[in-house]
Amino acid sequence: MKTVGFIGLGTMGMPMAANLLRNGVSLTVYSRSRNKVRELVELGAEAASSPADTVRDSEAVFTMLTDDQAVEEVYFGPNGIMHALRPGIALVDASTVSPSLSERIFRECALHLVDFLDAPVTGSRPAAESAQLTFLVGGKAEVLDSHRDLLLAMGRQAIHMGPAGSGSKAKLAVNMVLGIQMTGLAEGLATAVKSGIAPGAFLEAIASGGAASRTAEMKGERILKRDFSQQFALALMLKDLKLASRHASNLQVPAPMLNAAKNIMQMANNHGWGQQDLSAVVKLYEEWIEQTVT
Amino acid sequence: MKTVGFIGLGTMGMPMAANLLRNGVSLTVYSRSRNKVRELVELGAEAASSPADTVRDSEAVFTMLTDDQAVEEVYFGPNGIMHALRPGIALVDASTVSPSLSERIFRECALHLVDFLDAPVTGSRPAAESAQLTFLVGGKAEVLDSHRDLLLAMGRQAIHMGPAGSGSKAKLAVNMVLGIQMTGLAEGLATAVKSGIAPGAFLEAIASGGAASRTAEMKGERILKRDFSQQFALALMLKDLKLASRHASNLQVPAPMLNAAKNIMQMANNHGWGQQDLSAVVKLYEEWIEQTVT
Amino acid sequence: MKTVGFIGLGTMGMPMAANLLRNGVSLTVYSRSRNKVRELVELGAEAASSPADTVRDSEAVFTMLTDDQAVEEVYFGPNGIMHALRPGIALVDASTVSPSLSERIFRECALHLVDFLDAPVTGSRPAAESAQLTFLVGGKAEVLDSHRDLLLAMGRQAIHMGPAGSGSKAKLAVNMVLGIQMTGLAEGLATAVKSGIAPGAFLEAIASGGAASRTAEMKGERILKRDFSQQFALALMLKDLKLASRHASNLQVPAPMLNAAKNIMQMANNHGWGQQDLSAVVKLYEEWIEQTVT
Amino acid sequence: MKTVGFIGLGTMGMPMAANLLRNGVSLTVYSRSRNKVRELVELGAEAASSPADTVRDSEAVFTMLTDDQAVEEVYFGPNGIMHALRPGIALVDASTVSPSLSERIFRECALHLVDFLDAPVTGSRPAAESAQLTFLVGGKAEVLDSHRDLLLAMGRQAIHMGPAGSGSKAKLAVNMVLGIQMTGLAEGLATAVKSGIAPGAFLEAIASGGAASRTAEMKGERILKRDFSQQFALALMLKDLKLASRHASNLQVPAPMLNAAKNIMQMANNHGWGQQDLSAVVKLYEEWIEQTVT
Ligand SMILES: NC(=O)C1=CN([C@@H]2O[C@H](COP(=O)(O)OP(=O)(O)OC[C@H]3O[C@@H](n4cnc5c(N)ncnc54)[C@H](OP(=O)(O)O)[C@@H]3O)[C@@H](O)[C@H]2O)C=CC1
Ligand SMILES: NC(=O)C1=CN([C@@H]2O[C@H](COP(=O)(O)OP(=O)(O)OC[C@H]3O[C@@H](n4cnc5c(N)ncnc54)[C@H](OP(=O)(O)O)[C@@H]3O)[C@@H](O)[C@H]2O)C=CC1
Ligand SMILES: NC(=O)C1=CN([C@@H]2O[C@H](COP(=O)(O)OP(=O)(O)OC[C@H]3O[C@@H](n4cnc5c(N)ncnc54)[C@H](OP(=O)(O)O)[C@@H]3O)[C@@H](O)[C@H]2O)C=CC1
Repeated sequence: MKTVGFIGLGTMGMPMAANLLRNGVSLTVYSRSRNKVRELVELGAEAASSPADTVRDSEAVFTMLTDDQAVEEVYFGPNGIMHALRPGIALVDASTVSPSLSERIFRECALHLVDFLDAPVTGSRPAAESAQLTFLVGGKAEVLDSHRDLLLAMGRQAIHMGPAGSGSKAKLAVNMVLGIQMTGLAEGLATAVKSGIAPGAFLEAIASGGAASRTAEMKGERILKRDFSQQFALALMLKDLKLASRHASNLQVPAPMLNAAKNIMQMANNHGWGQQDLSAVVKLYEEWIEQTVT
Repeated sequence: MKTVGFIGLGTMGMPMAANLLRNGVSLTVYSRSRNKVRELVELGAEAASSPADTVRDSEAVFTMLTDDQAVEEVYFGPNGIMHALRPGIALVDASTVSPSLSERIFRECALHLVDFLDAPVTGSRPAAESAQLTFLVGGKAEVLDSHRDLLLAMGRQAIHMGPAGSGSKAKLAVNMVLGIQMTGLAEGLATAVKSGIAPGAFLEAIASGGAASRTAEMKGERILKRDFSQQFALALMLKDLKLASRHASNLQVPAPMLNAAKNIMQMANNHGWGQQDLSAVVKLYEEWIEQTVT
Repeated sequence: MKTVGFIGLGTMGMPMAANLLRNGVSLTVYSRSRNKVRELVELGAEAASSPADTVRDSEAVFTMLTDDQAVEEVYFGPNGIMHALRPGIALVDASTVSPSLSERIFRECALHLVDFLDAPVTGSRPAAESAQLTFLVGGKAEVLDSHRDLLLAMGRQAIHMGPAGSGSKAKLAVNMVLGIQMTGLAEGLATAVKSGIAPGAFLEAIASGGAASRTAEMKGERILKRDFSQQFALALMLKDLKLASRHASNLQVPAPMLNAAKNIMQMANNHGWGQQDLSAVVKLYEEWIEQTVT
Repeated sequence: MKTVGFIGLGTMGMPMAANLLRNGVSLTVYSRSRNKVRELVELGAEAASSPADTVRDSEAVFTMLTDDQAVEEVYFGPNGIMHALRPGIALVDASTVSPSLSERIFRECALHLVDFLDAPVTGSRPAAESAQLTFLVGGKAEVLDSHRDLLLAMGRQAIHMGPAGSGSKAKLAVNMVLGIQMTGLAEGLATAVKSGIAPGAFLEAIASGGAASRTAEMKGERILKRDFSQQFALALMLKDLKLASRHASNLQVPAPMLNAAKNIMQMANNHGWGQQDLSAVVKLYEEWIEQTVT
């Protein structure tokens, strides 16, 4: 049975780590918030005192952190992972971060004969809880194969996207599609409602044809109930759209749809809705149309 | 058994009319193209010599035409429908047109004690063939109820969206969501591929999470095979985005996503891809990234 | 000395009509607001009782009205101009309206052997007062030549832009450039100020190089003083951007800059700033950056 | 008389260095291209063998380089400036780069008791030749005062924009306004021409009112003559729009106009027009409208 480290017990990390435990993995965890660590210790995990400490006896270490800054701190900061590397172990970062950061970690790991996978996920909290995540994996295929068992303890599939950084690149492209869809749905709904159409009838119409989407399925009902509690925070989506925007820009890809969605999410964020679900973007349209959509 | 008229035997109208026949309706048809009419006559329809002529013995008359201009001509032109109205009959326009035109037809019909429904559809050719369309219906609920049997001969449901014009309004809002999704998918795919991600892996990634959509399901495969044969013509989508844009503008709704998609579809159309499937918008991105996505 | 009619005594029409009087023209005026008419009567004008009445003894009739709707009413409404046409007279519309309306008036005038010029102006209230307007003229060059004296009583030049409708087309293209510039300036200023740059220093920097513009000259100072009193109403600019947008759309011209500016002006308008100067668009950015730019 | 170093003898750097010489400054120059160095040596400069070598006897060192990457190399690379610092000297970077890079250089200089100004310029080649540049200066006001003489040997004014990085921030905001204006002008011109308006008449109309701009003055004529020879390269403008976009994004400022202009410039760049003048963006619109604007 593998000994594994896990760092970052947030919305996603907590259920993911719990699933590793449930699959009999011997787990050492670290998070800045003590009470989250305590919860997992009760389920059988050991507590580490720092990111570096998480690495000591582990064959593989997972990280699931907020953003580039958190990942940089946890890998390269004082008591960071990089100070405790041993040849032969593997690191797997499941956070959504910029591809250049993934590539940099890969390169530094390689110098220490350590394997690295960037393996961000699709699916949010419910999928994390039910081990139904999909990992989009960048790095060496053999490394993925060696640790596929761990990924499948937390998700239902792991798709190899290409060399180091490709997981992050794929994730950004996926989330740019998602961000565009969410914003487009809000715009369509606002237009329909301003026209006098009942929002429920509009969502039925959307579901009936080619415009149907998981976004409409998952968010439509919740919007009608004005439930904007966080599944995937608007601020995190904004972060991803900014990373995607920078990525597209570096690749010389014109990205008008992405940029439009990013600006709208930024406006919504500046209204103070960053910690609500990304579907709260509809509230911005409600301001514009001077009525609610429900 | 009802006697019904049907005008406009294009991509959509032909299978719709055939389904009415198949359900035992007594059908009179008109289309400018003689050979389309002949096909239906062989299936048991009668041929009319003009739009007006289609109305004479019918309790209900359906129209399924390209755009505002075609509808204006067929209703208000010489030998148009409006010249042959009899109190008590019903007209149903299933074309996607501007709400103001639907409202105008409704008002003029009302003066002649004729019922009118604007009932554009979601679902494209395959749904029309298999009678799986959804009708988005504007007009009086009782009129919809009286003719629901006819609609259900061609589709699987008819949703009442509100008073006259509401069908057209809902359809524009639905297609704006669809146009945004199609363009967003093309943008994401182009960005992924430019990053070095294999397009098939990217589509798998899309399908795995919240970014999944019927657009990705229906168009993804076809794009990979470079099959841009028309399911829903790019030029028709552009037409709808322009109508939606005008509609949003009249309603004072800012619509940045719609406008972005409209401009991109316009560029693609100006490249000469208007008669291909709307998924051909991906070719514009291919020009921008200087490589194909397949 | 010419006998002339003038309809529409708003922000622009009032000083224009006054300038005709000042140049010795024999003037008959009409406006719905009696007190505006009275002001001009005191300066020597005669009052007409309706648009039609303005035409009776005039060789030329000018209109300077809000928008398409106002022009349609004044020309085609009950007691409208068209009911009083006499062969040989000339009509000149200086309002900013849609080219298709200008073309329609031209065609109807031609049927009555009446000349028509669409002659919208550049320059706002101060230019109207000092007779420094520029007329952008569509219609027959000979007609322009016959009435250039009248135009030059109100402005400093009249540029022939082409056949009927060309004045309106040129005006829309000019105002789309202006609307883009105003919005772009607001966006740059907001970004600079959010960076910690003093707004005055930023405007000096703008003035120093290729980014200099009459917009920055005319609006910069006023923004710093938070003087948003109307020179050119934001709602009127929005109207023009919508007309331009529709015009570009009909011409199949992708117009991403115009559409971006239009959406932003729409948002500003929906905040209730339509009756302030178009420079009030900067307040929208102030909301976004959560601080004032001054 | 001051002894000064100058690094980067490109389109802008060459005439700027020449102006320092002309003002009696004792100048040491470095550029990777030998022949440019030779030209200045003939005018009285001394040649340095590396960036570091330029610093040795200088009280002040100017850099005028392409972009972030070039500046990083020249300051921090092997034989870079930072290896040769002496307390008390001043470095001035006149390149347009990202504010974060300017701030980083400032901080590293401070550690060595070296002064640093970020001082990008407005005005292009002709202004550089005639010493009519404007410097937008970030850093300590006293440092600017000590070296204002040198700046005024190359320009007509130096505006203090605020602390370190403020010059770069102001420059990005200025160029974002410029990029928006250039793209907006191209869009308006294309729309006018597609309407049948003569381009010369349109430019006259622009010049006549509030839409007038230095961009229209400087680029209009050249576009009509199809002279797209480089005054300010489209690729450099694109670089600045990308920096500005990232800057706005970091500041949480929604920037729809900037993003629209950036995407359009990216498309134009990908057509291969990066090394032409930024006014070549009009060629993209020519493709869209399927005719030239001249
Ligand atoms: N939520 C969702 O639906 C989805 C999220 N994602 C991505 O997964 C990642 C995690 O998301 P989510 O769990 O929602 O985010 P949370 O913000 O809920 O959790 C992030 C974790 O990072 C830790 N962390 C943050 N900064 C630091 C730091 N400087 N040092 C150490 N630890 C730090 C926090 O822990 P503590 O404070 O205890 O240290 C917390 O445990 C993100 O990149 C997100 O974009 C991907 C798919 C879906
Ligand atoms: N295709 C699709 O996937 C979908 C289409 N729609 C909408 O349904 C409508 C029909 O689409 P589709 O069938 O694809 O379009 P087609 O262009 O294939 O068919 C339109 C029909 O209109 C007729 N027509 C056009 N102009 C005139 C005219 N002036 N006078 C008389 N008849 C005219 C044509 O017939 P003829 O030349 O024989 O007279 C043709 O039969 C459109 O509004 C479209 O937006 C809605 C959902 C999906
Ligand atoms: N303001 C500016 O800086 C510039 C404006 N323009 C354009 O010039 C035109 C006029 O602008 P401006 O003077 O500012 O606008 P105002 O709204 O100030 O004036 C419009 C005039 O139209 C009259 N009017 C409106 N509706 C009707 C109607 N249904 N029947 C009869 N009269 C009507 C109003 O008069 P009453 O209520 O008395 O009848 C008023 O006199 C607009 O098209 C504008 O876009 C062009 C350049 C600059």
